[in-house]
Amino acid sequence: MSRPLDVLDKSKGKRVIVKLKNGSEITGTLQAFDLHLNIWLEEAEETREDKKIKLGSVLIRGDTIIMVSPQ
Amino acid sequence: MSRPLDVLDKSKGKRVIVKLKNGSEITGTLQAFDLHLNIWLEEAEETREDKKIKLGSVLIRGDTIIMVSPQ
Amino acid sequence: MSRPLDVLDKSKGKRVIVKLKNGSEITGTLQAFDLHLNIWLEEAEETREDKKIKLGSVLIRGDTIIMVSPQ
Amino acid sequence: MSRPLDVLDKSKGKRVIVKLKNGSEITGTLQAFDLHLNIWLEEAEETREDKKIKLGSVLIRGDTIIMVSPQ
Amino acid sequence: MSRPLDVLDKSKGKRVIVKLKNGSEITGTLQAFDLHLNIWLEEAEETREDKKIKLGSVLIRGDTIIMVSPQ
Amino acid sequence: MSRPLDVLDKSKGKRVIVKLKNGSEITGTLQAFDLHLNIWLEEAEETREDKKIKLGSVLIRGDTIIMVSPQ
Amino acid sequence: MSRPLDVLDKSKGKRVIVKLKNGSEITGTLQAFDLHLNIWLEEAEETREDKKIKLGSVLIRGDTIIMVSPQ
Repeated sequence: MSRPLDVLDKSKGKRVIVKLKNGSEITGTLQAFDLHLNIWLEEAEETREDKKIKLGSVLIRGDTIIMVSPQ
Repeated sequence: MSRPLDVLDKSKGKRVIVKLKNGSEITGTLQAFDLHLNIWLEEAEETREDKKIKLGSVLIRGDTIIMVSPQ
Repeated sequence: MSRPLDVLDKSKGKRVIVKLKNGSEITGTLQAFDLHLNIWLEEAEETREDKKIKLGSVLIRGDTIIMVSPQ
Repeated sequence: MSRPLDVLDKSKGKRVIVKLKNGSEITGTLQAFDLHLNIWLEEAEETREDKKIKLGSVLIRGDTIIMVSPQ
Repeated sequence: MSRPLDVLDKSKGKRVIVKLKNGSEITGTLQAFDLHLNIWLEEAEETREDKKIKLGSVLIRGDTIIMVSPQ
Repeated sequence: MSRPLDVLDKSKGKRVIVKLKNGSEITGTLQAFDLHLNIWLEEAEETREDKKIKLGSVLIRGDTIIMVSPQ
Repeated sequence: MSRPLDVLDKSKGKRVIVKLKNGSEITGTLQAFDLHLNIWLEEAEETREDKKIKLGSVLIRGDTIIMVSPQ
């Protein structure tokens, strides 16, 4: 039986978009995640109100995430 | 005895509407869910203030969800 | 000794009103609920700012609920 | 040693006022409560901005409650 | 080793001020509290925007509390 | 291996600044804390919008705290 | 298999940027963290609306954090 986090397993090493509760979006290469949906991205970039900011490596806390989508 | 999440079991592989706390709605084919109501949709589409955006595969974090309804 | 969720046991198969934290009200036939107050309604209808929208089957996440009242 | 919820034990079958985080107040006869402070009231009445609405039986989710006071 | 809730043990039967997340302050005689910081006050009085309202007995839910201070 | 709360162990009996989610700052002598970051201060003083208010002894609930800093 | 918090293990003793839910950013040398993402920084500095404030040692509560990024 498939579980919802399986969609992230298939995305390891690939680009994903993470939408946050504060309205910003982080795009990056999915390195790791856990059951709380804490997410580690590499070569990450934040988009907020059409501005882009390079973040490099970033750990996103799971409880700030609305959704994650493979790019 | 039936449990509330049984309504989602019957909706696997079918289109559902997910309403989020931030006011947006995601429509997609229900692939998987868990007890926290984390939901994996395929061919998903977001509707927000009458605009539609294609999302493709998406994992929605359970704690951002208000309700889920089979279409 | 009676427990608070007993009031819902008596309402199974009957119409209930569910008030949500976002200000909307859902009316429907109570199909099932659990300890988190996740609720499955049938023939549900949402009322928000005097507009009514038919929802059909719906699963409401417990943590978005303020109160439930048999109609 | 007394515990804070003991004040509710003494109020069973009596009128209590429940203040909610959304600013409304529910008055009713305390039927049952649990450790999460989920509360079942009978002959309940909601007061919000000086308007009163009859609710009858109602289950209030504990995490929406600020305080409970015997009338 | 002392623990933070010890400060409340010393305040049993004495007047305390409880500041709530919604901006109001409750003053009363501390009757009981638990690990969640649920608090039972007697002869309680609410102060909000310089208005005082008598509450009598009151149970305050722990998660609505910012701080408690012996008077 | 050091743990984040060790920084508070070293601050016992010393002045610390506690920043709260509601925007106010409490300064006081750290008496005790626990794993939830519930904090007991002595000779505490609140600063909010440049006004200072003496609090004396105070128990601050951990979930209202943003950060704690030795003065 | 790598886990998301491994990105912080590699950052111990190095400068990291911590973005908080209240909009401020803390930069500092990562001393320690735990599974809740409670973080202890040394030589920390807060940036908020282009103003910088020296904090020195600081313990940041995990649930106020959006993301952590090695500088």
